[in-house]
Amino acid sequence: MTDESSPSDETARTPPAVAVVDAQSPGNVGTIARAMKNFGFEDLLLVDPPKIDPDGEAYGFAGHAREDVLPDATELSFDDLVDSYHTIGCTAVTNEDDNSHVRFPYTTPADLAGRLPTVAGPTALVFGRERVGLTNDELAQIDEICSIPANAEYPVLNLGQAATITLYELRRLALGDDTQLPDLERVRAPEQTLDRLYDQWAALLEEINHPDEKRAKTMRMVRRVFGRADPTEREANTLLGLLRRATERPEEK
Amino acid sequence: MTDESSPSDETARTPPAVAVVDAQSPGNVGTIARAMKNFGFEDLLLVDPPKIDPDGEAYGFAGHAREDVLPDATELSFDDLVDSYHTIGCTAVTNEDDNSHVRFPYTTPADLAGRLPTVAGPTALVFGRERVGLTNDELAQIDEICSIPANAEYPVLNLGQAATITLYELRRLALGDDTQLPDLERVRAPEQTLDRLYDQWAALLEEINHPDEKRAKTMRMVRRVFGRADPTEREANTLLGLLRRATERPEEK
Repeated sequence: MTDESSPSDETARTPPAVAVVDAQSPGNVGTIARAMKNFGFEDLLLVDPPKIDPDGEAYGFAGHAREDVLPDATELSFDDLVDSYHTIGCTAVTNEDDNSHVRFPYTTPADLAGRLPTVAGPTALVFGRERVGLTNDELAQIDEICSIPANAEYPVLNLGQAATITLYELRRLALGDDTQLPDLERVRAPEQTLDRLYDQWAALLEEINHPDEKRAKTMRMVRRVFGRADPTEREANTLLGLLRRATERPEEK
Repeated sequence: MTDESSPSDETARTPPAVAVVDAQSPGNVGTIARAMKNFGFEDLLLVDPPKIDPDGEAYGFAGHAREDVLPDATELSFDDLVDSYHTIGCTAVTNEDDNSHVRFPYTTPADLAGRLPTVAGPTALVFGRERVGLTNDELAQIDEICSIPANAEYPVLNLGQAATITLYELRRLALGDDTQLPDLERVRAPEQTLDRLYDQWAALLEEINHPDEKRAKTMRMVRRVFGRADPTEREANTLLGLLRRATERPEEK
């Protein structure tokens, strides 16, 4: 019998689970489920969840996650969570330095996005309750701390918003480079097309008797404007057609 | 009379405004106001807003933004919006290619974060109504298109969540590098401290009679583990103390 995928390959392909601890508002659970679905995460873990009514706010906020992420959520205890996963606790408030290890050192979601893809093994992103977040006792049992950089005067994000940003930053763990956006690699028009566009600009400058001594400078400006805009081939060809007609237009009546 | 700050300097320092077009839910307006406050944005523009009741959902979701961003919001028409600002319309659905210019080319919030800091001038990030977002007619009047990369199977984010991610990505326009997070530049312990830690590991290996032929390999592993973890000076010194006591402990009774 051939073992086509080894267990470690399997683990490597599993994006992190998302754990929500003691949320008070079903709406926030729904918002988090929706963000999970938007960024390709599937495994929702709930510790001491509020009552989740299929006709209530959680399902109302979940969007299409009402079809899978939310009904498939797993309820478990905080102890089971920290025993079964490498846990990353999200908090707005960190310690200032290493006088306390409870909330320090921390990483940012962008740091995690750089590091986690190289690590296989079950991982859970842990979000705490509204208002007070994860407690120091909970954070002490968690493997590492993650904090979203925000306004020093008001860094405390709403629970659903914090989870949304974290999942957005970590989307490549779940989606790879496969998003709804078309590939942008070949957007810029070919150089030959752009050169024809610039030649047509030069012809227009001549046709409108733009002063000789200014032409080189004006052409540099034209290049700079279109150089920054990275026109597509269609845009460049459309502009080229317009300029050609402007250059070659019949004598005014 | 001395003009201490030129108008263009002033403009350069102004982060983008945030415009919400025809939102149906006051709660979403509150959520966006909160994200603005979390990431340092101040100027909220409302086109055809829902009724915003100081005792209602908008203020309920706004957190500390209830003190300034939300009550200071400006109501204006869509025409005034596009006349007064360079507008960046946010949409989940883009065109696939340049057969239509309505939703193509687009940039991502991360692209904007790279480009906008070099441009002065009034700019507004424009978010559309729930469910259908900005219409094609609206997008046709807008200067550029921004789209958040998401799950191809379900790229449509909730309005508040889309704005939260966009403002998070653009936070440096409003906050610079000034966030609640302490400076991480000097977190890693000095090399001398780490060298003492490794020396103490070596002494422990000797004390516990770790086989001679394995010591070099084990020491490389120890270096790799601590090398990746970037211990702080306090962590390194605490570990050093523990290892020293493990090495020098009195003979067991």
